[in-house]
Amino acid sequence: MKFVIKNPLDMHIHFRDNQMMQAVASHTSHNFSWALVMPNLIPPIKTIKDLKEYKERIEKITKKDNFTPYMTVFFSEDLNYTILKELKSYVKSIKLYPDWITTNSKWWVSDILSEKTLEIFSNMEKFEIPLSIHWETNDFVIDREKNFIPIYEKLAQKFPKLKIIMEHITTKESVDLIQKYDNLYATITLHHLYITLDDVVWWMLEPHLFCKPIAKRPKDKEALLNIALTWNKKVMFGSDSAPHPKNKKECSHCSAWVFTAPIILQLLVELFEKNNSLDNLQKFISNNAINIYKLNPNDKIIILEKKDFIVPKKYSDIVPFKAWETISWSIKN
Amino acid sequence: MKFVIKNPLDMHIHFRDNQMMQAVASHTSHNFSWALVMPNLIPPIKTIKDLKEYKERIEKITKKDNFTPYMTVFFSEDLNYTILKELKSYVKSIKLYPDWITTNSKWWVSDILSEKTLEIFSNMEKFEIPLSIHWETNDFVIDREKNFIPIYEKLAQKFPKLKIIMEHITTKESVDLIQKYDNLYATITLHHLYITLDDVVWWMLEPHLFCKPIAKRPKDKEALLNIALTWNKKVMFGSDSAPHPKNKKECSHCSAWVFTAPIILQLLVELFEKNNSLDNLQKFISNNAINIYKLNPNDKIIILEKKDFIVPKKYSDIVPFKAWETISWSIKN
Repeated sequence: MKFVIKNPLDMHIHFRDNQMMQAVASHTSHNFSWALVMPNLIPPIKTIKDLKEYKERIEKITKKDNFTPYMTVFFSEDLNYTILKELKSYVKSIKLYPDWITTNSKWWVSDILSEKTLEIFSNMEKFEIPLSIHWETNDFVIDREKNFIPIYEKLAQKFPKLKIIMEHITTKESVDLIQKYDNLYATITLHHLYITLDDVVWWMLEPHLFCKPIAKRPKDKEALLNIALTWNKKVMFGSDSAPHPKNKKECSHCSAWVFTAPIILQLLVELFEKNNSLDNLQKFISNNAINIYKLNPNDKIIILEKKDFIVPKKYSDIVPFKAWETISWSIKN
Repeated sequence: MKFVIKNPLDMHIHFRDNQMMQAVASHTSHNFSWALVMPNLIPPIKTIKDLKEYKERIEKITKKDNFTPYMTVFFSEDLNYTILKELKSYVKSIKLYPDWITTNSKWWVSDILSEKTLEIFSNMEKFEIPLSIHWETNDFVIDREKNFIPIYEKLAQKFPKLKIIMEHITTKESVDLIQKYDNLYATITLHHLYITLDDVVWWMLEPHLFCKPIAKRPKDKEALLNIALTWNKKVMFGSDSAPHPKNKKECSHCSAWVFTAPIILQLLVELFEKNNSLDNLQKFISNNAINIYKLNPNDKIIILEKKDFIVPKKYSDIVPFKAWETISWSIKN
């Protein structure tokens, strides 16, 4: 049995840089047509110059593959009218990180509704640059995404033509919200379709499942699964796959994030098949993003076959999601 | 500045056995007058014979100190009338573990309201043997303690003369519950007075703060703190201190529990001092348990002095709570 995906897209990927990028980028470039590359390096990608150089470093690794890295820059107060006007042709999105919430986000400003920030949003709206947001409040860890909803509502209302992508949503409340505003969209990761907080802190503690935003309740996972499995046009796949070496995950202070890049398509096909929704996977993994981001496909075909794939224990020094487990689908070489 | 504690009691301690017991038991026997020793070894302590032998092994280590280990047995369906009648003079409590929830609890039966179980509770009530319960439901990890409350209520109503100790409570709901029924009591750990889930899964993941029941919300910690700091007679200190070697905490599947034994008194004095409640610490750490369990003090005095104590990085191969941090109180030798 075979399953064909046309132009799979990962609309939220972390390639990091240097040696780590060398270890991970080709997992995405092999299996995906394009990917939207997050800018949170140390220091983050903020300028066109940095962006061009970073893109070149990525392409050096991915050039063997029929693959396009779509770039983002790190939202900052430097983004004035002139810069945004020029940026428009280089980026697919600008990524806004909350203060101190995520890896390398300390460069961000803390008030998302300041005059300066609102002016930038307004210019982005003019130039039709989508705004990708990873935001959570500083509340109790379970409530942080949910409690940010009033801010999303304000932004959605104030900038009705600005496309706002709520990145890696994890709650039923976020699923409900994107259906309420025309200009709100969301990415959903692979791991949030699979795990809840119970998987992270149940019988044992599982550092390789520790991610941000933290996986939430069963009802939240169910809501994510429901919207991903149906034909809903407001959601795209974005893996948020991010590598950390084993010794940063299995230690006394473990880094967040899950590394899924090499097994995304296999697990998505398995998941959609299990839920009798294989017909909708093409939309979730590609078509919806093409429509939302107005992308031009470059015709890449990935064929999967129903054949067991045992997830390796490690890729380089990175322990992947589902390490050692067997997936019932493989990518056909 | 000095602070004197008379007969400090730890009403919930895990000594484990063999080499591990060798590494940890004297931390408790040095600093405490008595402690209630939990029976969840592999296999658990279920018989008088096992209990006597375990007690002997403990005393071999603790005999240099003026210290009494009070024993418990593991609740099981074997506890018939005759056994309970004999047990009465050997144990201070019988510890009931939920099915699969905690280390070595797989020997327990899963239905706490079965006819057999209720008969045992009824006999324990007759023989005035307290029932110590660590129970949580199988619900979402945050709700598991709270959702067990209806069962506690049924037991409290059905056996009004059975002293039921809700072990290591972590929620505001449990704090409210013990004040509702005369025969419900609770132990509170040191770490649950210090941490919330935000400390475990915040910026980084902290395996050394991963415990069961998992630390809950700020409002829950506040409720625990409030009842511990006041003169409330329904709560006792029970550390639930449990050692795991470093490599079982810093790995891909990390064991639960926190090791606090060597620093309990120093941190409690610091905490009660900070909250202007030093006058109430004697009740929380000793007097309340003496009244609840009807114990006879053996007059041990521990003197603390206001002098910085840097918590070691490790005790043997065990990383303690607050490793490397400085506490403003020390135990005077």
